[in-house]
Amino acid sequence: MHSVIRGACRDLPVRSRSRMARLRFRVGLPNQQHRPYNVTSSLSSETSSASSNLPIYRPREDGLEPHHGHRPPLTHEIAQLSATLEGQSVSLGGWIFSQRRASASLHFFTLRDTSASVQLVCKDSEISQKLMDFPLESVVSIQGIVRARKQKAKAGPSSATLSTADEVEVEVTGCILLNAADPLPFYASRQEMASEEIRAEHRYLDLRRSELAANLKLRSKVAHIIRCHLHDQKFDEVETPVLLNSSPEGAREFVVPTRTLKPSQIPNDTSLQPTFYALQQSPQQPKQLLIASGATSRYFQIARCFRDEDGRKDRQPEFTQVDLEMGFVEGTGEQGESWECSEFRTLLIRERLGNELDTWSMGGQQVKQVVEGLIRKIWKEIKGIELGEFRCMPYQVAMDVYGSDKPDTRFEMFTLPLGYYPDLSDADLDKVLLDQSQYTVEWMITRSEHAKYLNMDDLRNDHVQAIHIREDNVKSWHTESPFTQKLGLTMTGDGAVTGGGVQPGDIIWLAQRKKVAEGGWTQLGRLRVQMLDELVRQGALKLSDQPNFLWITQFPLFTRADEDKAFLSKGRWASTHHPFTAPMFEDLEDLKGGNVEKVRGQHYDLVLDGQEIGGGSVRIHDANLQEYVMRDVLKLEQDEIARFSHLLQALRFGAPPHGGMALGLDRLVAILCGAKSIREVIAFPKTQAGSDPVFKSPSVVAADVLRDYGLESRKRS
Amino acid sequence: MHSVIRGACRDLPVRSRSRMARLRFRVGLPNQQHRPYNVTSSLSSETSSASSNLPIYRPREDGLEPHHGHRPPLTHEIAQLSATLEGQSVSLGGWIFSQRRASASLHFFTLRDTSASVQLVCKDSEISQKLMDFPLESVVSIQGIVRARKQKAKAGPSSATLSTADEVEVEVTGCILLNAADPLPFYASRQEMASEEIRAEHRYLDLRRSELAANLKLRSKVAHIIRCHLHDQKFDEVETPVLLNSSPEGAREFVVPTRTLKPSQIPNDTSLQPTFYALQQSPQQPKQLLIASGATSRYFQIARCFRDEDGRKDRQPEFTQVDLEMGFVEGTGEQGESWECSEFRTLLIRERLGNELDTWSMGGQQVKQVVEGLIRKIWKEIKGIELGEFRCMPYQVAMDVYGSDKPDTRFEMFTLPLGYYPDLSDADLDKVLLDQSQYTVEWMITRSEHAKYLNMDDLRNDHVQAIHIREDNVKSWHTESPFTQKLGLTMTGDGAVTGGGVQPGDIIWLAQRKKVAEGGWTQLGRLRVQMLDELVRQGALKLSDQPNFLWITQFPLFTRADEDKAFLSKGRWASTHHPFTAPMFEDLEDLKGGNVEKVRGQHYDLVLDGQEIGGGSVRIHDANLQEYVMRDVLKLEQDEIARFSHLLQALRFGAPPHGGMALGLDRLVAILCGAKSIREVIAFPKTQAGSDPVFKSPSVVAADVLRDYGLESRKRS
Repeated sequence: MHSVIRGACRDLPVRSRSRMARLRFRVGLPNQQHRPYNVTSSLSSETSSASSNLPIYRPREDGLEPHHGHRPPLTHEIAQLSATLEGQSVSLGGWIFSQRRASASLHFFTLRDTSASVQLVCKDSEISQKLMDFPLESVVSIQGIVRARKQKAKAGPSSATLSTADEVEVEVTGCILLNAADPLPFYASRQEMASEEIRAEHRYLDLRRSELAANLKLRSKVAHIIRCHLHDQKFDEVETPVLLNSSPEGAREFVVPTRTLKPSQIPNDTSLQPTFYALQQSPQQPKQLLIASGATSRYFQIARCFRDEDGRKDRQPEFTQVDLEMGFVEGTGEQGESWECSEFRTLLIRERLGNELDTWSMGGQQVKQVVEGLIRKIWKEIKGIELGEFRCMPYQVAMDVYGSDKPDTRFEMFTLPLGYYPDLSDADLDKVLLDQSQYTVEWMITRSEHAKYLNMDDLRNDHVQAIHIREDNVKSWHTESPFTQKLGLTMTGDGAVTGGGVQPGDIIWLAQRKKVAEGGWTQLGRLRVQMLDELVRQGALKLSDQPNFLWITQFPLFTRADEDKAFLSKGRWASTHHPFTAPMFEDLEDLKGGNVEKVRGQHYDLVLDGQEIGGGSVRIHDANLQEYVMRDVLKLEQDEIARFSHLLQALRFGAPPHGGMALGLDRLVAILCGAKSIREVIAFPKTQAGSDPVFKSPSVVAADVLRDYGLESRKRS
Repeated sequence: MHSVIRGACRDLPVRSRSRMARLRFRVGLPNQQHRPYNVTSSLSSETSSASSNLPIYRPREDGLEPHHGHRPPLTHEIAQLSATLEGQSVSLGGWIFSQRRASASLHFFTLRDTSASVQLVCKDSEISQKLMDFPLESVVSIQGIVRARKQKAKAGPSSATLSTADEVEVEVTGCILLNAADPLPFYASRQEMASEEIRAEHRYLDLRRSELAANLKLRSKVAHIIRCHLHDQKFDEVETPVLLNSSPEGAREFVVPTRTLKPSQIPNDTSLQPTFYALQQSPQQPKQLLIASGATSRYFQIARCFRDEDGRKDRQPEFTQVDLEMGFVEGTGEQGESWECSEFRTLLIRERLGNELDTWSMGGQQVKQVVEGLIRKIWKEIKGIELGEFRCMPYQVAMDVYGSDKPDTRFEMFTLPLGYYPDLSDADLDKVLLDQSQYTVEWMITRSEHAKYLNMDDLRNDHVQAIHIREDNVKSWHTESPFTQKLGLTMTGDGAVTGGGVQPGDIIWLAQRKKVAEGGWTQLGRLRVQMLDELVRQGALKLSDQPNFLWITQFPLFTRADEDKAFLSKGRWASTHHPFTAPMFEDLEDLKGGNVEKVRGQHYDLVLDGQEIGGGSVRIHDANLQEYVMRDVLKLEQDEIARFSHLLQALRFGAPPHGGMALGLDRLVAILCGAKSIREVIAFPKTQAGSDPVFKSPSVVAADVLRDYGLESRKRS
């Protein structure tokens, strides 16, 4: 069974050689390692495997044993085959993708590997028979000779994105079955026949679809472009802990029990308390500490992050972000003043002055530059597109003009607060402006050319009103609305702004909204996007291929309108993003004076075609101000503030001004792939409910595992 | 407070402009967003922040307020300063590292940023006073003029690895206090004065040490070299789930409770069971599934992994590995046969024939090539060293010759089983070889030149015996040992192998060991390393600077000798590495026949200078064989096997032969940095006990958090 090494003894002295021979002969064992390893423990062991319970190997019944021994090394990937190899012997490895008998003496097969597929021609009846007997999707080693094809191969049964070596075919001279395939629950070429659930459970088979495989390869490429670019820009990639501490900073976190038990703090309670790590929601605090340390002034990391959020469409409990932070970033706009937005002016200026508004009026310019450079690089290398300037828009403008803090600006349909309807009479303007309610009305026009495609039943909801414009109400449509009637408006329209005014066939949408926008959407903002999707789906609208990048800036620093934050904020003010965001310099005095609701943050989101792909901010580098925000504004309890003590201390011990950003890699790659969901760019995604269909997580663990963690399953009460 | 944007209205039509003016005048608010955000909810809210409980900002008492407004942008990093900038105005940002008054009109300061440090000269008494008043380690913005130095700066108070811009100094013309530093618990320049605990708690201050900062930068560089090289080699980096499922595969894992509760499987039990993810110990199963999918045949990932191991020296609960896997790797050695080791021959051949033994006698050659290429690249780029050939050594040889499965081969002191002492008489050889005990004796010589440095009290222990060689026992030392006496040996020595035989002053060490080695060390193997450390420490031995890379191959596939595995294996055979390792092809029939103890695996470890830096294997690609190993050899329960059902299925549905490797990045970087511990190459390491001194994890979480997970703290019983 064991062959003896050849020639190894040839130069040994005679005595040694003869002794070795004797040694083998007399002991009867060619070498020591074939004696039993651990005789004593094997005999004394309770579960003796050596004697009573000897393993019995059962070979396959069908005789299609996988090959284990020596085999010819592969010489090429299929994608490397070309007509220049004509006549050359090759050794390939791959999956049998199709089998076809042309005649008794001629069979065709398709061999697929990870690079491409190629046609195999087999004229040897014995080999043909073997290859016909191997089930589809079996893995084989093929020896053969490259033949140029007289005509290029048609697109074979393989899918569009996997290339075919179409100049050549391979005449088979030998084959080895490396691993036979059982019948598959579905085949990649016919995956549409399998249910979503079956495909998810057998993700490793779904990944045979070349589209999915191509997505993973593109993701790999994008991540590498990002790293190369940031290294070129002198960034250091620093790994920060995934096992962090629980922190009342943002979303709901995952906790990880440990076997470290701590004595209870309660008097007379002798019990031991379980203790936990928390999985990082983002490397926010570690990266700020890093910059405060001065170890680097340009940090980045492509980091896995974790949030225990209730299942939402296109979210995953674990996700990946491109995280970066820079020291010594600016803390104000270039002129040291902020750009003020009046929505009325915005609209007018947008129409008449073009992009003059697009000014970055906060600090963090260095971050903006780096991120824009990065995005440019990605689009250049992946798409071959040279991107133009990135626009900027303050949050309030975005909310007023598009009803969203991530507006899709490829589509010129505006959601405008009624007060800024330009065709109001002076009397009506007075009514709107002097109205003391915190609410106003927003309106939006759908033009007749689009309106005719819409199914109104799908769009109508309790919060919006649709007024169909006819010849008879074109000048008085506002009288049909309870929203506008309430204000007693008497609008007249010359259409100066709406570009031709309202025409019969148009629809005017009206909805109530807060005068000062909050949260991520207005009613009409949501409706606008829903309409957009519908129009695109029906082909009534074609959106630009050019990606439309947009910075949204000057978010309100605090909010009470974010349901995600309600879990932690319990009715208090919550940070719109996180408690470390610096206020706009211009609003610093408002913050210190307690005018919390007026304060804008130096936060910026990067939006692409209506999707937020990243966000960041200039941070508070002033420990005193940071503590004030936590204690006096956010009203954190003392023990909650204590969770940030390391950060407050780091700020106190000489921290430079700093700021940074995080880009969602999953989303970014999904957009680059044209994928509908981030699940299509993740190798093994979880379901919306957070379960893993392949690995079957989460699952129950043994009670003794819990016991080690000082935990037990909660009794029902 | 808010300045109005300049000139924005200049092109508006007159009517609009006048209306805007009116709007401001009449409403009395320059823009809408300065109205209260959410009046209603603010008033109705229970915790009203607007009225009763207005935040009060308290400024710093020392008046050293951090700067918030506009400031001159930085023009240079300090490392960019050179004499070519003579006379030029620069703006720098950094930390005040030292302050010195030379005279009333002349002060010197050292400014440090993340790149270097530079001397500041200040002749302006007002600025000097400010700079003297700023506490050390405060962050400042400095405006000044570059002056060439007449003489190069001496190494300043900064530490060795942070460079000094020594050609120039900067004459200060202005300064801004960006952030004042409170007195630090310790200063980086004097960090040796702080306790380990204080430094760990304030890691962000310890990171101001340029040595630590340089380690992080080197780590970033190494990771990038790895990625660039693997991308060049056509590998795809694929992210796999960190949140996996519990699996009885290796070490103890961390679990993560979820809010998904499952009905109990016990009849009449209406309780809901908590469910858990497990944190990945390594991406082993996902990467095998990936290769089985065919989505890529060259996967890699620099992956964070997690093990809940009891605190061990230089281990971390989270660590980083360079993980790779390849499809279609070879499954046998090049000749399809294995190299057999006889330790006697090994020793002789080692001495006389050199490296002829260094043959890779298993599959996985492709992995070996890729990893060697990668390591070569790293050493070339980081150290400027062109590495020679990597040696190979079977596990049994390593254990017999060095008493370790990660031998430090830079040091020629051998631990040899007594049976292979070459100077035994034939009669003695018979005694040794025919001895039926599973134990034998290993011996090792410490030469007098080294022995004189050793403190025998430190080295002696209950398991080893030391015989001091004198003139009178040089030929009969074995009679002094109970180990050899038991066998009744009468050795004579001509020193053919030991290079001059035993000499007075030498020490011979003896210890009992298993004839067939198991586990990671023999008694003398441990002693050898201990001695090595001591000799190096005392300067009695200088080890080669050339890194000594070594592959250890042909490990036993199964073990009962690994304490780490006892937790899961419960007295059964355990996989030496993991259950997916393929047997040596030559031992396949032994495995199928149930001769478990004879079977060697196609596993390989990469060892550098006595430290294991990585390991990998060819995997089982045969579902039938994999299931046999799990069920019949490892005796896994049905529900344990079910945890691997996805893998078994993937193998059944057409998986190519595959193999891979994982390299420990922390260790690798620590070696490259010359760091004593992996903690020195991790930004925020945990203690040996697994606690995080900065973030204060693990910690207790609120009972209601546990309740959501269906858990509660265990009652003491």
